[in-house]
Amino acid sequence: MNLVESLQYKLREDGINAYLIPTSDYHQSEYISDYFKSRAYVSGFTGSAGTLVIAINDARLWTDGRYFLQAEVELEGSNISLMKMGQKNFPTINEYLASILDDGSTLAFDGKVVSTNFILDLKKDLGKKSVTFKDNVDLMDLVWPNRPHLPKEQIFILDEFFTGKSYKEKRKEVMNSLKDSGANALLLTSLDDQAWLYNLRGNDISYNPVFLAYTLILEDETILYVDKDKLSQEVSKYLKDNDITVKDYDKVYSDLVDVKKKKFLLDFNKVNYSLYNILKDNNTIINKENPTLILKAIKNEIEIKNTKLAHIKDGIAVTKFMYYLKHNWQKDELTECKAADYLYDCRKALKGFIEPSFTTICGFNEDASMLHFVATPENDRVLDTDGLLLVDSGGQYLEGTTDITRTFAIGNPSHEMKVHFTTVLKSVIALASAVFLRGCRGVNLDILARGPIWKLLIDYRCGTGHGVGHVLNVHEAPNGFRWKIVPERNDSAEIVPGMITTDEPGIYLDRKYGIRTENEMLCVEKGTSEFGDFLGFETITYAPIDLDAILPEMLTEDEKKWLNDYHEMVYEKISPYLENDELAWFKKATRKI
Amino acid sequence: MNLVESLQYKLREDGINAYLIPTSDYHQSEYISDYFKSRAYVSGFTGSAGTLVIAINDARLWTDGRYFLQAEVELEGSNISLMKMGQKNFPTINEYLASILDDGSTLAFDGKVVSTNFILDLKKDLGKKSVTFKDNVDLMDLVWPNRPHLPKEQIFILDEFFTGKSYKEKRKEVMNSLKDSGANALLLTSLDDQAWLYNLRGNDISYNPVFLAYTLILEDETILYVDKDKLSQEVSKYLKDNDITVKDYDKVYSDLVDVKKKKFLLDFNKVNYSLYNILKDNNTIINKENPTLILKAIKNEIEIKNTKLAHIKDGIAVTKFMYYLKHNWQKDELTECKAADYLYDCRKALKGFIEPSFTTICGFNEDASMLHFVATPENDRVLDTDGLLLVDSGGQYLEGTTDITRTFAIGNPSHEMKVHFTTVLKSVIALASAVFLRGCRGVNLDILARGPIWKLLIDYRCGTGHGVGHVLNVHEAPNGFRWKIVPERNDSAEIVPGMITTDEPGIYLDRKYGIRTENEMLCVEKGTSEFGDFLGFETITYAPIDLDAILPEMLTEDEKKWLNDYHEMVYEKISPYLENDELAWFKKATRKI
Repeated sequence: MNLVESLQYKLREDGINAYLIPTSDYHQSEYISDYFKSRAYVSGFTGSAGTLVIAINDARLWTDGRYFLQAEVELEGSNISLMKMGQKNFPTINEYLASILDDGSTLAFDGKVVSTNFILDLKKDLGKKSVTFKDNVDLMDLVWPNRPHLPKEQIFILDEFFTGKSYKEKRKEVMNSLKDSGANALLLTSLDDQAWLYNLRGNDISYNPVFLAYTLILEDETILYVDKDKLSQEVSKYLKDNDITVKDYDKVYSDLVDVKKKKFLLDFNKVNYSLYNILKDNNTIINKENPTLILKAIKNEIEIKNTKLAHIKDGIAVTKFMYYLKHNWQKDELTECKAADYLYDCRKALKGFIEPSFTTICGFNEDASMLHFVATPENDRVLDTDGLLLVDSGGQYLEGTTDITRTFAIGNPSHEMKVHFTTVLKSVIALASAVFLRGCRGVNLDILARGPIWKLLIDYRCGTGHGVGHVLNVHEAPNGFRWKIVPERNDSAEIVPGMITTDEPGIYLDRKYGIRTENEMLCVEKGTSEFGDFLGFETITYAPIDLDAILPEMLTEDEKKWLNDYHEMVYEKISPYLENDELAWFKKATRKI
Repeated sequence: MNLVESLQYKLREDGINAYLIPTSDYHQSEYISDYFKSRAYVSGFTGSAGTLVIAINDARLWTDGRYFLQAEVELEGSNISLMKMGQKNFPTINEYLASILDDGSTLAFDGKVVSTNFILDLKKDLGKKSVTFKDNVDLMDLVWPNRPHLPKEQIFILDEFFTGKSYKEKRKEVMNSLKDSGANALLLTSLDDQAWLYNLRGNDISYNPVFLAYTLILEDETILYVDKDKLSQEVSKYLKDNDITVKDYDKVYSDLVDVKKKKFLLDFNKVNYSLYNILKDNNTIINKENPTLILKAIKNEIEIKNTKLAHIKDGIAVTKFMYYLKHNWQKDELTECKAADYLYDCRKALKGFIEPSFTTICGFNEDASMLHFVATPENDRVLDTDGLLLVDSGGQYLEGTTDITRTFAIGNPSHEMKVHFTTVLKSVIALASAVFLRGCRGVNLDILARGPIWKLLIDYRCGTGHGVGHVLNVHEAPNGFRWKIVPERNDSAEIVPGMITTDEPGIYLDRKYGIRTENEMLCVEKGTSEFGDFLGFETITYAPIDLDAILPEMLTEDEKKWLNDYHEMVYEKISPYLENDELAWFKKATRKI
């Protein structure tokens, strides 16, 4: 009996018709600590996003376009059907649940790992059917003998030298925003919002320097619910000095039972259903985005200054990696894993480096056609032929968080590869040089990047870019570029000065190759006229774009100028940290075309 | 006592706090017959869109960006304040009404000239205040002694040879669509929807070949409420042969009182508040877009074939006008009015021409900076200096409806003018050559046109394009290009094959000049790949874009190719209708650059 069958057996035993296994922790985090990786454990699909539904005689997994290829491979032989989200002929999760849950049936799930919105929407979609929601069921312990423990990593203070704003200032801004919303209480459960608010960082989730916690903000008190073992004396003192009450992590559930008659702002996309359920009857509930979200997204001047320093460090690492790659791929029998390791070592050598900001994607030729391919010893490929190596990586530094993709020519890429590489570059440039009226959102700007690729009747099945945190999550709401609004992603806010967003169009040809060039861009003011305030972008990623893969004749004069100006800036920022052969090569790698 | 003061006197007398005068007829038409032009009569502002609110001690007029300059001029000395819609620091109509209407106050209006949505939204925005809505008040007769009568123009049949589909086929499609919406009754009040459904045209509103009517569609009956004087014997027979019951225009209000227990589809943006009020208590109401809207917007092959013929005719007229303009502007002491008249004569000479499709805009230099300037004998300007003449015009032909703008170089336009003219051309080309995945809306594509102009920190305060009817309204929902969705405009539908939309970016510099180039584009399929269905546009307007105003060095190779290909096509379509000097000049006017 495999895991799915075991669960189905248990469902039958308990009279449950379907069991939900989403990809989430108690905080609706995008990346989660090992304790919460139930969906991957049960299904075998390791992508970062997916929802598994186990019904009595059926099991299905929903995931998005980034993971279609990977999920197909990983689900093979599992008896779990892949549901491709957003594609024709595949029902949504709710449509599917509505089709299998009849009057009198029971749906089970752990209310702590699903968002309030998910359950409320599902209830709406089930209409007048009487379906029982068992919201305190965690069946994982039954089928997962060696389930990892919750993490216990130490929390550290990120100095105001890096963050530019104290906890007390931030709390004041949050309170003002609460008042504007007519609320007097806030339950903050999203981990990056709490880390940002306190100027604290942790290590509970790989790549995201956050810590598991809940925060209750009342007019006269702030309570941090956190595992006290994670607090050093220094951090405990810092919390005390800032009048922050500390209580045990789990205590929030029993504490909230006694909170009454408050006007709570709750972000239904973030707060888990169990917490909502506790608060909803005794308090007024305002469903609204956390006030921290926009405050955190608009970086202050110190954060911007530091982020640029982080990008210089990151640029040094990627440049040194590129030098190594270009000169050693044949000699060293280089593989995807070895290349990724080398790049990691380049970053690790830099002062202030904390950890990678996500799992490095290092895919050669057909491997890179899977958008989020991760090389492992089992599937590692040798760079033994002409082609393209796609490397998407980033770092967490004390100064900031980075995310960069470069695709490198290995040997002599084909003409088609170069046409596609140059098209992707045109896309990057078109978005990077946009000028737009204040008020524009990603949905307005996306076609600038997608347009040149669409002209080849090709599309990339993902957004064009996402917000990036400051020493925080590499995917940060609410800014992004996407042509169709996907409400649950919450990445279609107005793009305003101070936001940092990636610009990462790509071309992915199934079982052939993948190309992506990714820069981060800071939104800046471009000038004000009688027609309004105009905004644009400053590219803040500093690493060469591989000229070996470019067909210059495909670029307009304006595009060439953009590329030459960009490479001139990259040379200026990075060359002081290189010498001898590396420097000589770098000069050529950033030459005018 | 001026008109506003007279009305305010009457309001005080009747205990009314505010009186609404929108710009509408009983059918929420964009253009209206003279009987309904109350707002223009009272305020003096003659633009096509605006809402006047007369309060006891205040009078304000709301209009949109197209009309800011014109309204400022026309309202001067009127004591009516101009409220610029969508601009900072101006309240919306509802915000203003909420601020002046307190508990116990009364708002008066004629429920037949406001949409259901307008009133329902207003009620929502007034919240819990108890405001009395007097919805049967038409004060115009008091202050408008020689108010025009309702029109009585004859209705004619537009042959299936032109429309490509019979009334009976269309009714079947409408009924299928009703069923899909769960409705069994439709009250169709929008005039173009009715004209389209019946394959009938009229002449009740200048420029729009429609007739005042209401239509009640039930499963077993279709009732046309219309002034019977407008029906010739032929039309009466046609209606009878098609099993259409004919009743008097006004009869709809008393008839509907007796309609009960139906499931009505009502388009709250179209159906007036009085009609909604009659139906709402005795029937189930489904608020949804009229099913005719999308059926009408997607032109069939015969309509497309005919529309292209109409554009060839229109191209001949505009080309002949351009020849005349270029050769006679100095000789003939040409003025804006004379030029517009000449263009009208060029169109009138063509077989199948019915009438212009809207008031010709013919503005020289600073006049053209007003987006919807209309030359009159009072403000007529002589073309006596170097500059740019903007001419926006169109025709109703039996084959179709056209809308075209060309801006012509007069003498030697300045370098700045040419820079701006060429930038507008770049914008036209960028949108015209877009390729996009099925599912895109105007909000996704708009920046292609607006982007090049935004780079100069300039914006045009209007949409980039609108749908165009077939021998119907020159502004037709639901397709259009606009970067911010304006729900009440209903022009942000998915762009799908068969839709015809204008592409008309522009640059308007206050008191300097205005530039607009406008083509119509048919949405067509571009190909299907593993990534989806790709769509694009075929430009179907055929007239030279003035090469005298272009700086070729500003265009990329791709843009030059587009322009050269376009002019080659224009030459092919139009040259057969020209000869001698005209033809020789035309060859040059469409030359390769």
